Amino acid sequence: MSESDTVEGLGELGTLARILPRLPEGASTLLGPGDDAAVVAAPDGRFVVTTDLMVHGPDFRLAWSTPYDLGWKAAASNLSDVAAMGARPTALVVALAVPGETAVDFLESFADGLREGCAEMAPGCGVVGGDMSVSSTMTIAITAFGDLEGRAPIRRDGARPGDVVAVSGALGRSGRGLDLLFALGVDRDGVPDASLARDLRERDADVGWHVAPTPPVADGVLAAVAGATSMLDLSDGLALDAGRVARASRVVVDLDSATLGSDPRAALAGGEDHSLFATFPQGAALPGGFRAVGVVNSARDATYRVTLDGRDLIEATGWDPYARWSGAAG
Amino acid sequence: MSESDTVEGLGELGTLARILPRLPEGASTLLGPGDDAAVVAAPDGRFVVTTDLMVHGPDFRLAWSTPYDLGWKAAASNLSDVAAMGARPTALVVALAVPGETAVDFLESFADGLREGCAEMAPGCGVVGGDMSVSSTMTIAITAFGDLEGRAPIRRDGARPGDVVAVSGALGRSGRGLDLLFALGVDRDGVPDASLARDLRERDADVGWHVAPTPPVADGVLAAVAGATSMLDLSDGLALDAGRVARASRVVVDLDSATLGSDPRAALAGGEDHSLFATFPQGAALPGGFRAVGVVNSARDATYRVTLDGRDLIEATGWDPYARWSGAAG
Repeated sequence: MSESDTVEGLGELGTLARILPRLPEGASTLLGPGDDAAVVAAPDGRFVVTTDLMVHGPDFRLAWSTPYDLGWKAAASNLSDVAAMGARPTALVVALAVPGETAVDFLESFADGLREGCAEMAPGCGVVGGDMSVSSTMTIAITAFGDLEGRAPIRRDGARPGDVVAVSGALGRSGRGLDLLFALGVDRDGVPDASLARDLRERDADVGWHVAPTPPVADGVLAAVAGATSMLDLSDGLALDAGRVARASRVVVDLDSATLGSDPRAALAGGEDHSLFATFPQGAALPGGFRAVGVVNSARDATYRVTLDGRDLIEATGWDPYARWSGAAG
Repeated sequence: MSESDTVEGLGELGTLARILPRLPEGASTLLGPGDDAAVVAAPDGRFVVTTDLMVHGPDFRLAWSTPYDLGWKAAASNLSDVAAMGARPTALVVALAVPGETAVDFLESFADGLREGCAEMAPGCGVVGGDMSVSSTMTIAITAFGDLEGRAPIRRDGARPGDVVAVSGALGRSGRGLDLLFALGVDRDGVPDASLARDLRERDADVGWHVAPTPPVADGVLAAVAGATSMLDLSDGLALDAGRVARASRVVVDLDSATLGSDPRAALAGGEDHSLFATFPQGAALPGGFRAVGVVNSARDATYRVTLDGRDLIEATGWDPYARWSGAAG
């Protein structure tokens, strides 16, 4: 590889010139990249915004994720947060810090994953701007925007006793894929190994789902239109995230183990599926891919919590980057 | 310092609980931190957005910048990009990746700098959301938003022959401060030294201006209202940034050396002042802190460039993080 194939060799402007043409323009983009700032349409006079960091080590490992996967997952995890407010994703901005010796090819593949992820999960969503810097630790910062189309945002605190609890999207697949990678995608010293991970991915689809999930982004708007009373993105696992709705809404969320598939424990604990959790008024027709997984009960004793089949559930510990990072990288 | 004083000890939620109360709520915030996404007002049906990464090493050094400085400068550099579109800053989101052993005090001071920077430069601008992760390389990603209040965005490509070229804010102060830090704020091995930098800062105000500048953010809206035909944020130095306007607008920007202070060379080359560069129709009253520094000429031979007193100016090389980073950190 010649120096001109690295970001250091090409420089910031040269690198951007290779990446920008691969990014989607977007239907809501009034002024795209190239000026001090972009201008995005916000037709109802408000916009939804969420931001997310992905850091090499705690959040991904280059031995396990291709650059295309990283672009796809960066889109997925942010688009699902926009969707969880009941909004339609309109635009993203992307800031990247990479080692100077990173191949520009790598960033092109990242851009391809981002573009195709947007096209698959949120057609019309564009990349309107970004920034680049150098860092010895690869870091991806995405900020995503959405349009509420005149509706109220669907918050975490609106669940009411009697509501149906529903989920759209996978439960536990991403966590199972990550468990497989930690068990079988590492060498004898426990270091993530690209070749082992590739083989594993061919044998088990949950591995690919972990590194590049496809959450049901369009179901966010459908849920809002159908009258969802609360909604959130399942990033830390069903048990933990349902607990957030329970506390915010001052209710008990009772989950039905019979609806949680063959491995309810994995469905409850596994994070990063970015599926949608929502509550709907009793009797509402569940839209899109939503299926009932429980009911909302009142909390007579003011302990807002999650129960499973009516019994107290010891909540699984969720993902806390400060608590868990071992420093292992690959 | 006990473990509970570090972000690793407190965890993500505990750390956020210490930081969030220090951040400004903002007059345009319809739904602040705590849900999957925030909701921000965009009264004219559009919003301006810019994003910026600050990475320890290429973009700042902990030996030279206090955490308060970093928060202030993160606000300054992003607010000035919003201002350079002619927009009023409304909101920010902040994503931070820090080493696990970082003291929560550090992040509290960062939040204080961000809050007071917003209050000084863009009153009413709030912090509506964020994200945290761990990284061995401290990284700050800010995305800022603005309201055009019904006006057209002021782009780089609108300068016309005959326009007055004007600048609001300092020219070359930040670059001079950085030069001083590189010359006198390092130990014998060239490593940035906190004690030397502190002494230097007490002796020379440009050092403090480099680590925490106060660009004339409010002048962005004033320029737009006064009819500015082009505008940008002077982040890479007057010569280089004026060249961007010249090429985008297909004109020649002629600067008048007599207007550039006692050290025109420093004024032309120094970056990171985040002052505003704008062009105004001939005869327009220059608003706020704007002062004339030149005129726009037509480019008869299709070479869009910057001249100084009518003579060709060899453009100073601007800041390119990939081209310049030595890996020195401190």
